Amino acid sequence: MAQTQLKTPKGTRDWFGPDAKLRRHIFQTLSGVFEAHGGQELDTPVFELRDILSGKYGEDSRLIYDLEDQGGEICSLRYDLTVPFARWLATNSNFTHVTRYQIAKVYRRDQPAVARGRYREFYQCDFDIAGDYESMITDAEVLLITAEAFEALNIDITIKLNHRRILDGIFAVAGVSPEKIRPISSAIDKLDKMPWDEVKKEMVKQKGLAEDVADQIGVFVRNSGDMRALLSYLQSNSKLMENYDIKSGVADMTLLVSYLEAYNVADKISFDLSLARGLDYYTGLIFEVITTLPDSKVASKSKKQEVQAGSIAAGGRYDNLVGMYGKRNIPCVGISFGVDRIYTILDSRLPTKKGGSQPGPAIDVFVVAAGGQDDGLLLELMAVLGQLTKAGVRTAFTRKAKPKLLPQFKVAKRAPITVMLVPDDLAAGNVRLKVSSGKDGADEGNSDYNEEKDRGKLVSKENLVVEVKKLLQQKRYDLEDDEVEGSILWTRQPL
Amino acid sequence: MAQTQLKTPKGTRDWFGPDAKLRRHIFQTLSGVFEAHGGQELDTPVFELRDILSGKYGEDSRLIYDLEDQGGEICSLRYDLTVPFARWLATNSNFTHVTRYQIAKVYRRDQPAVARGRYREFYQCDFDIAGDYESMITDAEVLLITAEAFEALNIDITIKLNHRRILDGIFAVAGVSPEKIRPISSAIDKLDKMPWDEVKKEMVKQKGLAEDVADQIGVFVRNSGDMRALLSYLQSNSKLMENYDIKSGVADMTLLVSYLEAYNVADKISFDLSLARGLDYYTGLIFEVITTLPDSKVASKSKKQEVQAGSIAAGGRYDNLVGMYGKRNIPCVGISFGVDRIYTILDSRLPTKKGGSQPGPAIDVFVVAAGGQDDGLLLELMAVLGQLTKAGVRTAFTRKAKPKLLPQFKVAKRAPITVMLVPDDLAAGNVRLKVSSGKDGADEGNSDYNEEKDRGKLVSKENLVVEVKKLLQQKRYDLEDDEVEGSILWTRQPL
Repeated sequence: MAQTQLKTPKGTRDWFGPDAKLRRHIFQTLSGVFEAHGGQELDTPVFELRDILSGKYGEDSRLIYDLEDQGGEICSLRYDLTVPFARWLATNSNFTHVTRYQIAKVYRRDQPAVARGRYREFYQCDFDIAGDYESMITDAEVLLITAEAFEALNIDITIKLNHRRILDGIFAVAGVSPEKIRPISSAIDKLDKMPWDEVKKEMVKQKGLAEDVADQIGVFVRNSGDMRALLSYLQSNSKLMENYDIKSGVADMTLLVSYLEAYNVADKISFDLSLARGLDYYTGLIFEVITTLPDSKVASKSKKQEVQAGSIAAGGRYDNLVGMYGKRNIPCVGISFGVDRIYTILDSRLPTKKGGSQPGPAIDVFVVAAGGQDDGLLLELMAVLGQLTKAGVRTAFTRKAKPKLLPQFKVAKRAPITVMLVPDDLAAGNVRLKVSSGKDGADEGNSDYNEEKDRGKLVSKENLVVEVKKLLQQKRYDLEDDEVEGSILWTRQPL
Repeated sequence: MAQTQLKTPKGTRDWFGPDAKLRRHIFQTLSGVFEAHGGQELDTPVFELRDILSGKYGEDSRLIYDLEDQGGEICSLRYDLTVPFARWLATNSNFTHVTRYQIAKVYRRDQPAVARGRYREFYQCDFDIAGDYESMITDAEVLLITAEAFEALNIDITIKLNHRRILDGIFAVAGVSPEKIRPISSAIDKLDKMPWDEVKKEMVKQKGLAEDVADQIGVFVRNSGDMRALLSYLQSNSKLMENYDIKSGVADMTLLVSYLEAYNVADKISFDLSLARGLDYYTGLIFEVITTLPDSKVASKSKKQEVQAGSIAAGGRYDNLVGMYGKRNIPCVGISFGVDRIYTILDSRLPTKKGGSQPGPAIDVFVVAAGGQDDGLLLELMAVLGQLTKAGVRTAFTRKAKPKLLPQFKVAKRAPITVMLVPDDLAAGNVRLKVSSGKDGADEGNSDYNEEKDRGKLVSKENLVVEVKKLLQQKRYDLEDDEVEGSILWTRQPL
């Protein structure tokens, strides 16, 4: 047998320590915003019956991971979180109005592009509002949430949006036959990455569209920008406005812009008539979030690592997906956040990791003993540690049976508080409490402790937890660089 | 084609709202305890190269879910979190001492027993300390963490523990041949569920052990209880103490009991010589956590639903697992928490869910408008809502374009604070702030607001966020039943 390869499967990776902590920061920020809008959490199994996923993803279905038939049900790993939500809605008919979020991994057997943050296993973070609401009220709320989420993450964005019925209407007016609308739509969607000439070539040469039809489409879809201006432009074209889909879409968008202005997020919006979105199931509003500018820090960090985040969130209205399961229908609108791309942006803002040294955990107190197993001080130390950890204080010691004093102090420096155990003090029921003088050696100026700087302050064992908690509540004794400017830093030294 | 079955795959389920919230409460409680002991988070892919899992689980390997061979690598879903951690340790040789935790789903194609909380997809919550430490120091810390975790979860426990080398030594002394040690060990492990006679029958009839050998084993393994007493019992038997494994194991356990006493958790321990644990990879301390008594509330809730939680956490020392990958070795000790069983226990303590009504989200503020789309009040409402949600205040409205006043007030009652929009007030730049009088209609006695009880207090739009936050900081205006006696309650009414 060949030797076992020691690696994660292609397109997947492990997350540890600070990396996992930064990702958790993203999850917590997003779920906080979702819960501010009444979002409740949903968790679904990582695999679904294969039939549930069938016919939902068009040609991307080939990217679905299948489980082996081991006798029993035929299952596949979920491809996104929208279809499992639709399945859940179709099944749980007692829910008529649901605001749910889900943060979970999805799976796509795509060609991974790890440097650009594209993996085969990656997190999605979805927020959706399901229920029969009046036109654009929940659509506007989803866009408000989008703006709030990126504000909370400290990422500048533009939300590009369009309306499926306006886009399809333009195709129809230009003379595209119904069966060609989706293929032409997917060609148009590439206009953000390709020049018009190439998109036109794809439509004419590959998809058999008449050249004059392609040109007519080009006149309309190359418009983008301010919503009110673009709505006036569409409304002034009577040929377009005779089309029922366009007329309805324009009415929707007119209502939407007033809501977005009320929510004070209209400045983040760009109405983009070429935005099409790949997925078949959208029926109304569609949108995509892009970062307006690559962060200057990102670009300067390393040219090779320059972040090409592309779309970092996307969504839209899908009024018929739940109905596809045949039980009942319920209209939905929602957004999916690309956590890994957001992670790449936030990570690029952190100071470059120092090679070699591994990150350590965040610790409040380090316990040091002037003795060990032989003189009973190890047991004294354990008693003190247990007191502190039971009270939720993050506490560490060398985990050695007979530790030497100097190496203990060397590690203890990295924690804001040191507790010292000395035989004479212990005999009198006391320990010593010492506040770290800060990473750069600068004095923190807490006179109470500095007076007895070297030996620390005597505290009775009974009062230790209370005293430590008091110190920790004075924020400056906590790890001060835990949070900086909305992103996260941490000690990168090992304990 | 047959109609799509609308359900989750066998042995899996969805988690929504309060259920997901209770589970998150468990995760957060456990990770808080882990972090208090320097634990850092690890996340690994849900599937591993199949070779990584091979030969790690003995006969349970048949329960592994395989991914279909779709061209490319051959993968399987993870069966536990220990093997992925060992794979990670084997790969990342820059880490010599790691304290890590992982909270993630694992997969077993076992016969599900949903009523007893046994699923095919379920969460594990693992904490492990890897590194070459002196005898029993980290073992004791893992047991301290176990005690702290269940204390924090408000669950009474007993930790049954044993030592593989003592158990194997007893088998050897009794005359069990080396190749029969694991099969006999797995028979002995059933002593907590089966009477001795049946276990003996299995050993003699099925596994071909001589009857006198079985009887000798029986004399020893049916001992359990106080650690110091049992250690004396073993030490007084010179035949046993001549065995090198037993002698080493007894030395380990003697050290351990002193550490556990220092940590003040010895009262939770039962030394149980019949505890064997199924997994092959344990090399020293093994342990299992059981709830001491079924909660009285659990039993009374419903006889059918009576919780048979069995073991709710388990672990031990595995010093050779990482070395199996041939790159390097690193000794480890750890514990795995059975989240679903813990969930079942905590859920059974909640008041019975009222049939029919669906749980709603936790909301701080409900915004009510005396008007709608036609008179501009919908836009005013949206502006106010956006102000509040941007500040992180959990805010809801009816999401109707032209809501009637009375139905709005009916829903608003469920939130602690109501903001009212009335045209005359708005013209002067004001809104009205009203504090809910509590669920049972009892007066909360906040005179400032009660004076103007019906109409609320006038607040300028600019000051609204500050005023609302001030009210929310007065805890009693938050949803008061959010936390009760260490467990969680919530409003079970829909918004």
